Amino acid sequence: MNWENESQKRIEELENIIRAYLPAEEGYQKRVIEAMNYSILAGGKRIRPMLMLETYRLFGGKDKIIEPFLAAIEMIHTYSLVHDDLPAMDDDEYRRGRKTTHIVYGEAMAILAGDGLLNLAFETACRAFDMEPHHPHIGRALQILAGKAGIYGMIGGQTADIQAEGMKQDEVTEELLLFIHEYKTAALIQEAMMIGALLAKAEENRLEAVEKIARNIGVAFQIQDDILDITGSLEVLGKTAGSDRKNDKVTYVTLKGMEQAKKDVENLSAEAITLLESFEEKNEYLNQLISYLIHREK
Amino acid sequence: MNWENESQKRIEELENIIRAYLPAEEGYQKRVIEAMNYSILAGGKRIRPMLMLETYRLFGGKDKIIEPFLAAIEMIHTYSLVHDDLPAMDDDEYRRGRKTTHIVYGEAMAILAGDGLLNLAFETACRAFDMEPHHPHIGRALQILAGKAGIYGMIGGQTADIQAEGMKQDEVTEELLLFIHEYKTAALIQEAMMIGALLAKAEENRLEAVEKIARNIGVAFQIQDDILDITGSLEVLGKTAGSDRKNDKVTYVTLKGMEQAKKDVENLSAEAITLLESFEEKNEYLNQLISYLIHREK
Repeated sequence: MNWENESQKRIEELENIIRAYLPAEEGYQKRVIEAMNYSILAGGKRIRPMLMLETYRLFGGKDKIIEPFLAAIEMIHTYSLVHDDLPAMDDDEYRRGRKTTHIVYGEAMAILAGDGLLNLAFETACRAFDMEPHHPHIGRALQILAGKAGIYGMIGGQTADIQAEGMKQDEVTEELLLFIHEYKTAALIQEAMMIGALLAKAEENRLEAVEKIARNIGVAFQIQDDILDITGSLEVLGKTAGSDRKNDKVTYVTLKGMEQAKKDVENLSAEAITLLESFEEKNEYLNQLISYLIHREK
Repeated sequence: MNWENESQKRIEELENIIRAYLPAEEGYQKRVIEAMNYSILAGGKRIRPMLMLETYRLFGGKDKIIEPFLAAIEMIHTYSLVHDDLPAMDDDEYRRGRKTTHIVYGEAMAILAGDGLLNLAFETACRAFDMEPHHPHIGRALQILAGKAGIYGMIGGQTADIQAEGMKQDEVTEELLLFIHEYKTAALIQEAMMIGALLAKAEENRLEAVEKIARNIGVAFQIQDDILDITGSLEVLGKTAGSDRKNDKVTYVTLKGMEQAKKDVENLSAEAITLLESFEEKNEYLNQLISYLIHREK
């Protein structure tokens, strides 16, 4: 398997699916739609929909029912970036080498564009009811889509992250940092893989294993991010490297040391891969994708 | 029927339902939950869930399946207020006589609290799947919940409203103002009444009529708001009266004149009531509620 070619093919496939669910830029609300489309078409790696699609395929899924959910999770991920970049939040002017949404469209429109994308995620996912009205798991897929994105998922993690920034350095514990990584990052990876498994009608024990695998991937991914924040550079990352250090932020690396952080990434990764390989279902591309995500250097 | 007593009874009933769906203030994400609960427990009149419940009753609905949707629509309404009040939007320090969410919890937490409430609305509505897995209309009710709140509903109206503020006075047309009133205000009234009708399994022609009735109520309600903005005072409204005039904002009243605006409220109202009374199903309280909403003096 040629990893680069296979990845490029899949990204193009996902781009086409996402674009098909984007709203037309017209009407009196045209401006917010432009801001939404600008944000989501920033050329990300589409990691979350890719994990969803490959998990769906792992368990034999072959239908179009997954498509609205692929678009929906990317909308949720994108809205969280748009709101994170706002002046009252991380106050970032650039993301992936492009100006952030509020820099281009103004702060009010960026707030509404984020709201619009989160809302559109649910509108989009609900289109699954029109595609397969009798599919047994759409309701539960929606529960996961919403649940893992909310206060017991991503938003909970973002809140804890902001709280941690306001703490003294010695108040930030490993437990708190793991909570942040699990909720802010891993929850959406869990959402991606669990919805993929669920819509492919995987058995309940598979779903539970997938939740665990995705938790490890997400936490390892985020620790790797903390590592790259120290070792990376602007050219490679496309964002301001060292932005965590800039604010004297406590990260997994500053707390546990670079060596231990790298070891923990390895252990989390190995555990996830072992569990994934214990399934009789196989998806070689998914294995490679997970390995890439955890060991990436940008 | 004693209007005051009946209304009080219903508000208490709705308060109890909404509270039952609010998250416990605990965990590392406690702060955002506090901000969410502060926002939703500000003592509003619960107009949207009340319209939903009374429309549900109009068509014979008697079950608990409506309850998660009652809470969900109030969460959506509340999130829109929290984000509307932000400095980059309307920049309001007070609402209903209390400090706004970002004044009490800071801007970052207010952004997240709004996101959290919108997300929680869908989490909450999705709990209906656990209550009645075989109810035929939950999927469509979710589609309406999301659709009327998004860019083809409330967010679309908010966008057009912000765009209108940036226009020269003579660029603001009646068509644009009606779009804003229909989308920013009436869409959520339509959502409320249509979900009530749908979950009570009303026939399709009733659902279409309810959409029209709710559109008229919403537009009349908002024109009445424009009227009250001129005639009201701080004591009666609990917000800064004349706030529209302050910014030389074009409103329905400045565009068409006070007399015509009042006539239009009457016509929209009469049309809605006539259509409602054409049904063989009756709900006297709903009739009075609609009349109260349109003719309220605060």
